[in-house]
Amino acid sequence: MTLSQRRDRLRERLAAAELDAMLVTDLVNVRYLSGFTGSNAALLVRVSDTTPILATDGRYRTQAAKQSPDAEVVIERACAPHLAGRAAADGLRRLGFESHVVTVDGHRSLVKAAGDVDLVRAAGIVEALREVKDAGEVALLRLACEAADAALEDLIAAGGLRPGRTEKQVRRDLEALMLDHGADGPSFETIVAAGPNSAIPHHRPTDAVLATGDFVKIDFGALVSGYHSDMTRTFVLGRAEDWQRDIYDVVATAQRAGTDALAAGVTLSEVDAASRQVIADAGYAEHFGHGLGHGVGLQIHEAPGINAAAAGTLLAGSVVTVEPGVYLPDQGGVRIEDTLVVGFDRGTASDAPDLLTRFPKELAIL
Amino acid sequence: MTLSQRRDRLRERLAAAELDAMLVTDLVNVRYLSGFTGSNAALLVRVSDTTPILATDGRYRTQAAKQSPDAEVVIERACAPHLAGRAAADGLRRLGFESHVVTVDGHRSLVKAAGDVDLVRAAGIVEALREVKDAGEVALLRLACEAADAALEDLIAAGGLRPGRTEKQVRRDLEALMLDHGADGPSFETIVAAGPNSAIPHHRPTDAVLATGDFVKIDFGALVSGYHSDMTRTFVLGRAEDWQRDIYDVVATAQRAGTDALAAGVTLSEVDAASRQVIADAGYAEHFGHGLGHGVGLQIHEAPGINAAAAGTLLAGSVVTVEPGVYLPDQGGVRIEDTLVVGFDRGTASDAPDLLTRFPKELAIL
Repeated sequence: MTLSQRRDRLRERLAAAELDAMLVTDLVNVRYLSGFTGSNAALLVRVSDTTPILATDGRYRTQAAKQSPDAEVVIERACAPHLAGRAAADGLRRLGFESHVVTVDGHRSLVKAAGDVDLVRAAGIVEALREVKDAGEVALLRLACEAADAALEDLIAAGGLRPGRTEKQVRRDLEALMLDHGADGPSFETIVAAGPNSAIPHHRPTDAVLATGDFVKIDFGALVSGYHSDMTRTFVLGRAEDWQRDIYDVVATAQRAGTDALAAGVTLSEVDAASRQVIADAGYAEHFGHGLGHGVGLQIHEAPGINAAAAGTLLAGSVVTVEPGVYLPDQGGVRIEDTLVVGFDRGTASDAPDLLTRFPKELAIL
Repeated sequence: MTLSQRRDRLRERLAAAELDAMLVTDLVNVRYLSGFTGSNAALLVRVSDTTPILATDGRYRTQAAKQSPDAEVVIERACAPHLAGRAAADGLRRLGFESHVVTVDGHRSLVKAAGDVDLVRAAGIVEALREVKDAGEVALLRLACEAADAALEDLIAAGGLRPGRTEKQVRRDLEALMLDHGADGPSFETIVAAGPNSAIPHHRPTDAVLATGDFVKIDFGALVSGYHSDMTRTFVLGRAEDWQRDIYDVVATAQRAGTDALAAGVTLSEVDAASRQVIADAGYAEHFGHGLGHGVGLQIHEAPGINAAAAGTLLAGSVVTVEPGVYLPDQGGVRIEDTLVVGFDRGTASDAPDLLTRFPKELAIL
């Protein structure tokens, strides 16, 4: 899908909401609709005109022309008020703005600049479009996932996961290897959690030393051209005890159940339940305290959230994580997480999700 | 200064503004006032009570108790509305909120929850307190700067800056070395810009190969316990031509002039002018298109901004960068940047700024 097609989809939604235009101020949304990646920008998308207006400041003159060749580029430091004024000058009547992003002070500036234009709260419209990924987005997400896969392979091949090393050293090597495999950086703070630390769902790497018999839980991802990958693998060092094999097996089974449940039209809470039930049946319900997954794309966490309280259904072409875990306090924990593209309706020819994170998931004793 | 003393300073300012309390929702400000570093939180600071109320969700129960032992901790996912409701229940009348941070939608939730309480726009109060660093903050900033210094020394000692390597490889090594020296991560996107790329003020590392005769401009920093360092050094590989020595000398002289001008009470625009004049006198005014510097602390860019348009004066104990540059398009550029603690009034015994980034600044031909 081209940027222009993305904007066409937005323009249809604006027309349906009886808006003349949308003032996009969330920078991720600006990027999605215009290709522009600078740190100061706003975008005006009008129903009656296929050319968007991109406002940014002088630092980005060259970059804006290059990244958004089909936009009208305006150089103006106060991007959003300028575009609100432009909407007023053009005689627009109802202008949507991102009320979940614009601050109270920012809104005051918009009101001043907008004159007679009605500023209409229009939260989450672009985010809803972003939930379904187009082919170009999936290609970038695949590259990001491949960079992470390759980095983890290299790390293990080089003996990087062995007793005596620290969590911080593992993180350091993994992040450097992702860069070697084409990542622009890590896609979020890398989690390396050894031994009892693996029981902490979101643990920051410390100087804790990896020891024989430890679980080592690694949750990490690569950033490629703005797109984020997300994967968790849990290993055991040297030898696995029965309790470790037990919870690993439970989580692996729950993770398969979750990915098997992924298909367009399935309710989000059902997907969560499919995986959670496996863990509950094994007696570990209280040790899985977070949601099953989330959308991934230009942000590491985006729509849809997959959890017990989520409303709505999965959409074909959305990209989500499935990441159940069992965490036994002070003892150790396991999480297994993949990123997948949701396929079509269950029962149709191509309903299976497309697995982007391909690093093996069998229990590996290193 | 203890967290409690920071809150006392805020409480004095609230009283002066005739506010009964402040609802702090910016997470950096929450951290500054409470020590809490979780990703979902709000803090209520009352004039009439020295105990703050910290709201966060269930994920952070243990962490909140540990990081903010002198706060009343409330577990509640909708942190800010809950605290607004608490202010109402306690009979407070005027509640300040961060109107530069709270979104339009967020404000609606606050209004609903606040009942009869007046929500008063109170932007930037905590940021103004943060401008002057206390001893603990300076200690952490010093550690962050030391980690960056040490990483750059190691990089060069290992031959990491030599013809044949790519900008991306240099970035990779530098970031890994900062982690080795105790950083929690880079403090912003590392800039490595070789040859003509050095003329781009903010360049992202590419696969461009370093070559003999190139300028290599490196702008980077380390993050330590939430505090950011920021330093730029520019090197020449192999041999320096006359034009390179010329602009290096101009920038180095301008940088000294800027740091020499740092003292409490000096206007921000004067500091900018002191450095900028050197560059203008050398005929390069048009090739220095950005401000001279900025505050550094819990954020990489914070108050004060040091540029020609800045109002206000420098405060003793603020921590700022001084970073002039000369950029000759398609040819090459030089920037030299230090992070320094502003001393006392000029002419007093200890008016000299305290240099935190100590890596040498003489032209180095590697």
